Amino acid sequence: MSDPQSPTPKEPAKPAPKIPSYKRASRLTHPENTVINLGPYAIGGEEFIVMAGPCSVEADPQMLGTAWEVKIGGAHIIRGGAFKPRSSPYSFQGLAEEGLKMLAKARELTGLGIVTEVMDSTDVDLVESYTDILQVGARNSQNFSLLKRLSKCQKPILLKRGLMNTVDELLSSAEYILAGGNERVILCERGIRTFETSTRNTLDLSSILTIKERSHLPVIVDPSHASGKAHYVAPLSRAALAVGADGLMVEVHCAPESALCDGEESITPGEFRDMMANLADLAPAFGRRISTIPLLAQNQRP
Amino acid sequence: MSDPQSPTPKEPAKPAPKIPSYKRASRLTHPENTVINLGPYAIGGEEFIVMAGPCSVEADPQMLGTAWEVKIGGAHIIRGGAFKPRSSPYSFQGLAEEGLKMLAKARELTGLGIVTEVMDSTDVDLVESYTDILQVGARNSQNFSLLKRLSKCQKPILLKRGLMNTVDELLSSAEYILAGGNERVILCERGIRTFETSTRNTLDLSSILTIKERSHLPVIVDPSHASGKAHYVAPLSRAALAVGADGLMVEVHCAPESALCDGEESITPGEFRDMMANLADLAPAFGRRISTIPLLAQNQRP
Amino acid sequence: MSDPQSPTPKEPAKPAPKIPSYKRASRLTHPENTVINLGPYAIGGEEFIVMAGPCSVEADPQMLGTAWEVKIGGAHIIRGGAFKPRSSPYSFQGLAEEGLKMLAKARELTGLGIVTEVMDSTDVDLVESYTDILQVGARNSQNFSLLKRLSKCQKPILLKRGLMNTVDELLSSAEYILAGGNERVILCERGIRTFETSTRNTLDLSSILTIKERSHLPVIVDPSHASGKAHYVAPLSRAALAVGADGLMVEVHCAPESALCDGEESITPGEFRDMMANLADLAPAFGRRISTIPLLAQNQRP
Amino acid sequence: MSDPQSPTPKEPAKPAPKIPSYKRASRLTHPENTVINLGPYAIGGEEFIVMAGPCSVEADPQMLGTAWEVKIGGAHIIRGGAFKPRSSPYSFQGLAEEGLKMLAKARELTGLGIVTEVMDSTDVDLVESYTDILQVGARNSQNFSLLKRLSKCQKPILLKRGLMNTVDELLSSAEYILAGGNERVILCERGIRTFETSTRNTLDLSSILTIKERSHLPVIVDPSHASGKAHYVAPLSRAALAVGADGLMVEVHCAPESALCDGEESITPGEFRDMMANLADLAPAFGRRISTIPLLAQNQRP
Repeated sequence: MSDPQSPTPKEPAKPAPKIPSYKRASRLTHPENTVINLGPYAIGGEEFIVMAGPCSVEADPQMLGTAWEVKIGGAHIIRGGAFKPRSSPYSFQGLAEEGLKMLAKARELTGLGIVTEVMDSTDVDLVESYTDILQVGARNSQNFSLLKRLSKCQKPILLKRGLMNTVDELLSSAEYILAGGNERVILCERGIRTFETSTRNTLDLSSILTIKERSHLPVIVDPSHASGKAHYVAPLSRAALAVGADGLMVEVHCAPESALCDGEESITPGEFRDMMANLADLAPAFGRRISTIPLLAQNQRP
Repeated sequence: MSDPQSPTPKEPAKPAPKIPSYKRASRLTHPENTVINLGPYAIGGEEFIVMAGPCSVEADPQMLGTAWEVKIGGAHIIRGGAFKPRSSPYSFQGLAEEGLKMLAKARELTGLGIVTEVMDSTDVDLVESYTDILQVGARNSQNFSLLKRLSKCQKPILLKRGLMNTVDELLSSAEYILAGGNERVILCERGIRTFETSTRNTLDLSSILTIKERSHLPVIVDPSHASGKAHYVAPLSRAALAVGADGLMVEVHCAPESALCDGEESITPGEFRDMMANLADLAPAFGRRISTIPLLAQNQRP
Repeated sequence: MSDPQSPTPKEPAKPAPKIPSYKRASRLTHPENTVINLGPYAIGGEEFIVMAGPCSVEADPQMLGTAWEVKIGGAHIIRGGAFKPRSSPYSFQGLAEEGLKMLAKARELTGLGIVTEVMDSTDVDLVESYTDILQVGARNSQNFSLLKRLSKCQKPILLKRGLMNTVDELLSSAEYILAGGNERVILCERGIRTFETSTRNTLDLSSILTIKERSHLPVIVDPSHASGKAHYVAPLSRAALAVGADGLMVEVHCAPESALCDGEESITPGEFRDMMANLADLAPAFGRRISTIPLLAQNQRP
Repeated sequence: MSDPQSPTPKEPAKPAPKIPSYKRASRLTHPENTVINLGPYAIGGEEFIVMAGPCSVEADPQMLGTAWEVKIGGAHIIRGGAFKPRSSPYSFQGLAEEGLKMLAKARELTGLGIVTEVMDSTDVDLVESYTDILQVGARNSQNFSLLKRLSKCQKPILLKRGLMNTVDELLSSAEYILAGGNERVILCERGIRTFETSTRNTLDLSSILTIKERSHLPVIVDPSHASGKAHYVAPLSRAALAVGADGLMVEVHCAPESALCDGEESITPGEFRDMMANLADLAPAFGRRISTIPLLAQNQRP
C-alpha cells in the first residue's frame, strides 16, 4: 500500500542537494507536506479531494442543479467559471459578477466550498469576496503581476500548470505567491501541449511525482481539460489516484451537449456518481479516502 | 470495478465511423480484443503481463541472476537487449548473438519466455531463432523495411511507440506487420519527447485509452524508459494498471549502479518484488490478475 | 526580387475560403497590408523597421548610452523593459516608472520612438503615458484581460507570440485588440518551445509566411529571445529579412557581460552597427529599405 | 558580406572546450569545413548546391521530363525516391530497382548526379550501384544498423535530421558513418515536429548555425518537407541561403496535382526556374554562388 505522505520513497541519497530558486516551494526547506484546511476538508492530506462542476457558470438552474448533483456524487468543492479565458473574443466570456453570485448561491444550497478563476489583478478583490479558492488558469500561469497580487490574498490559490511550462517553472510561479505571504497554494496538472493531437493536451502524470519530490505543496489533476474527452475522465482519474495526486478537478454538466463551453469533455452527473463510487472503493489501496457519505451530512448547514 | 475488455464504455454513438487506413489494426474491423497466447500466459487478457530484466545483456552471471530474481518477483517474461540502439557509436552496442545465447540460457533456467530487440532486417532470422517475442525499439518504430520483414515472422512482435509518433502513426506501423500476415502485435507506450526535461520522456498514459478505443491490439507500458528514474517506476506502474494497460515492461538490474546501460532507471530485484506484490494486490480492483505464485510452480520445468 | 506586399504569390486559388473567427485580423476581410505610421516611420511598409535596446532598463547611463548607440547603428525604435516578466520572484523585476522615465529621456535625447512591455492591466495607463508602442510579452500572449484593456489604448500594440501558441492563436489574441477598437497591432515571432535545447527557443520563420498569408498585420522577428545566443542574432536577422518579415526586435547592450538580464543574448553596439550595415546592403534585394543615414538627420529634433 | 566558411564569427572565446562524443563530426577535432566533391561540384564550398526532383520516381516520362526541367532550372543534383517510407503500408511504396534504373537514365540524359533514399541495410548494395549519393530519411535518422552499413559505402551519404532529433543527436548519427570510415556526410535540416500544425513540420533554421558551430560537415535545407506547402518553398529557400546553409533539397514535379506522393509541397518546373534565378541573384551577397549556366555546358556528356 502506498503512503501519500511519501510517494517516492526510493529516491537515492544525494550529496547535499542545492536549494532551488523556488526556495519556499521547495521540499528541501519545508520537508513536511503542506496541508490546506478548507472547512471540513484538508487538501493534501489523506482525503482525496474532488472539485467538480461546469466549465462555465451559465444560469441559475444549470449551476444550482449541477451543484446539487456533484454534492450527491461526493464532490468536496464546486467549480465553475465566471471569467472565462477564451481564445476568441467572440466566444462566451463568462457572466462575471453575476456568475460569482450564482456560485455563492450554489455554496449556500449545498454547503460545499467553491473555486473559480480570476483572470486579472483588477478582479482579485471581487472574486475573493465570493469564492473560497481563487484559480489561476493555464494561460495565466506565468502572469507574474497576477501572481504577485494573489500573494496578498487571504484565501488559497489553485495554480494550474501552463501548457508549455516545466514543473520547475510551475514551482517558480508558485514561489511568487508564497514569497508574497500566501502559503496556501494548490498545484494542478492539466496536460501539456505536445505534437500528439488525439487528446487535447497530453496529461503528464509523471509531473505529480516530480512535484511531490521537489515540493511540499499539494497537487491535483484535471483530466477533463487534459484529455478533452468525457469518456477518458474516469480512467485518467483512476490513474491520478494511483500515481499519488491529492485530488481531482473534473468538469460535470447537467446537459453536456448544450454546454456553452467544453461540452465534449464534461461528464454527466450520473457518470460522475459512478466514477466517484469507483474511486471511493479504490482509494484505500492507495492510502487515500473519499468520505462521501459522512461529509454529506456534516456539511449541511442549519 | 473496471472491465479490461471495454475500458472506454462511455464513448458516445457516432454516425457510421470511417475505417482508418490501418484497417487490420482498427477495432472497427475487429471488435474483440486480440489475445496473444505465449506459453502459459495470454497477453491482452485478464492477466497483467510483466516483462522484466536488464536493459542490456552483459554477462552470464548478471543475466542468469537477474532472470531468476525477476521470476521470483513474479515476472512473466524476461527482457534483455543483445542488440542495443545507442545514440553514440562508442557506447556499448550489445553482445549480439552471444547475448541471445545468454537469454536462451535464462529461459532454460527459469522457464520464462524472453523478449529482445531486433534492430535490422538482416538480423531477424538470427533473433527469431532465439527469442519468444521480437521487439522493435522506439527509434525503429517507423523503420518500414524492418516492419515488413517482421510481418513474415512466426513469433509475436512487441512494437514500441516512437518518441515522435502519434497513436495513429503507431497503429499504422502495426498495420505493416498485420498486413504482411503476422497478427500477433503487442504495442508499447514508452513516453514521447516533449519540452519537459524533468523526466527523460513524457509518459502519455492517455494513449492507452486511445489505443484501446481505436484498436484491438494489446498494449503495455514501459515506465523505465519513459521516466528514466528508478524511483518513478512503481507509481507509474500503478497508474498504468489503473488506466487499463495490459501489462508492463520494466528494467531490473542486480546492480543498477554498475549497469552498462541505463542504470539510473533500473530498479533492484528487491524493489521489483515489492512493486509486484503491490500490483498483485491492486490488480483485482481493476479487473486484472497477477498470478505470481501459481505460475512459479507451473513453469518450473522438470 | 521579392515584393514585401505579396510575399506568397503562388498560393493556389481555393473555392470560397471561410472567414476565420479572427475576422478583423484576417486577410480575407482586409486584403491590403496594414501599415502603422509612427513618427517618420511606417511599420509594415517598405522600410525594414528595427527596434533595438537593452533587455531591461537598468540605469540612466546604460539606457542613454545604449539609446545613442542604437540610433547611430540605425535603429528606428528603442526597446527597453521597465516591467520584467521573470520566472523567479527573486530575479530583477525592472525599475517600473523610474525605468519608463529613463526611456522617455532616451527618446528626448535621440528623437527615436520607444517600445516597452506592459504586464498588467492596472499598469496600462502609466505605461501608455510614457511609451510610443506598448508591448505584450510572450507569457501574456493569452492574457485576455490585458488584451481587452489594450484594445482601448490609442497607441500601437506589439504582440509577441506565446511560447506555446499556434499562429491561429496569435491571430485570435490580436483579434481581442482589434475587436475593441485598436487597429494598430504589430505581431512578433520570438521562437516557440520545442524539444530542442541547443537554442533557448526554436525560431519559427515559417510563421512569417503563415501570418502574411492569413493576416494583413505587420510582423517582426526577435532573434535575440528566440536563440538566446548573441552570435546567432545577425544570421537569423538576415534570414528574417529574406523570408519577408517587416522588421526586427534586437537586444543591444553596452556591456552584455554585466547586463542584469539576458546578457548572453545581447549584442554589443559595434556588432549592431555591423549587422545593420549588412542588412541595409541586403534589403533592396528583398524589396526592402533601411534608410539609416537620412533618418538620422531627419529625426534630430531642433 | 557574410563568409560561408565562418558564418558564426562572433562566438566568444571559451576556456578549453570539451570534445563531444561525436568527436569525428566535431569542429573541435576538424576545424576546416568538410567539402565533398561530386563530379564538377563541391558540396560545402562556395557553390550553393541544389538537389531537385520529384518526391518519388513514378514513370520514365515523369522522371526524365522533370530531370530535364530541373537541369534547365539550374539544379546540381536530381533527387527522386525509389524506396519510399510511407506511414501506411497501403500507400505507394516506390518502384524499387525499376525506379533506380529511371534515375540512372535521368543522369545519363542530363549529366547531373542523382541522390535517392535507402531504407534498409539489405538494399545498400543495390542502391549504391545506381546512385551518386545515398540518402537516409528522417524516420531512419537513428536506425543505427543502417548507419553502420553506410559507413562502409564508397559514396557520400545525405543524412536527414529526424523529426524529433536534437542537433547533437543528428551529429551522433553522423558519427556512426564517420566512425566506420565514410567521411563524406552531408546533413539536412528538414523540419522538426512541434505543436504547430500550420506547417507540416517546423523548419528550424537556427539548427544551421548550431551545426556550423559544432561540426565541419556541410548542411543543406529541405523546405518542401519542412513546410508541406509549395508556395512556402521559395521564401524558405531564400532564408536558408541567408542563414548560411550550403544548399537545398527541393521537390519539383511536372504535374504536382497528379503526383503519387506529396504533390501539395512540390513546385512546378516554372516555379523552380524563377526561384533559382532569384537565388542566383541573391547568392553573392551571402558569399555564395549558383553557377547555373556554365555548369549546364560543362556537364553535358559527349
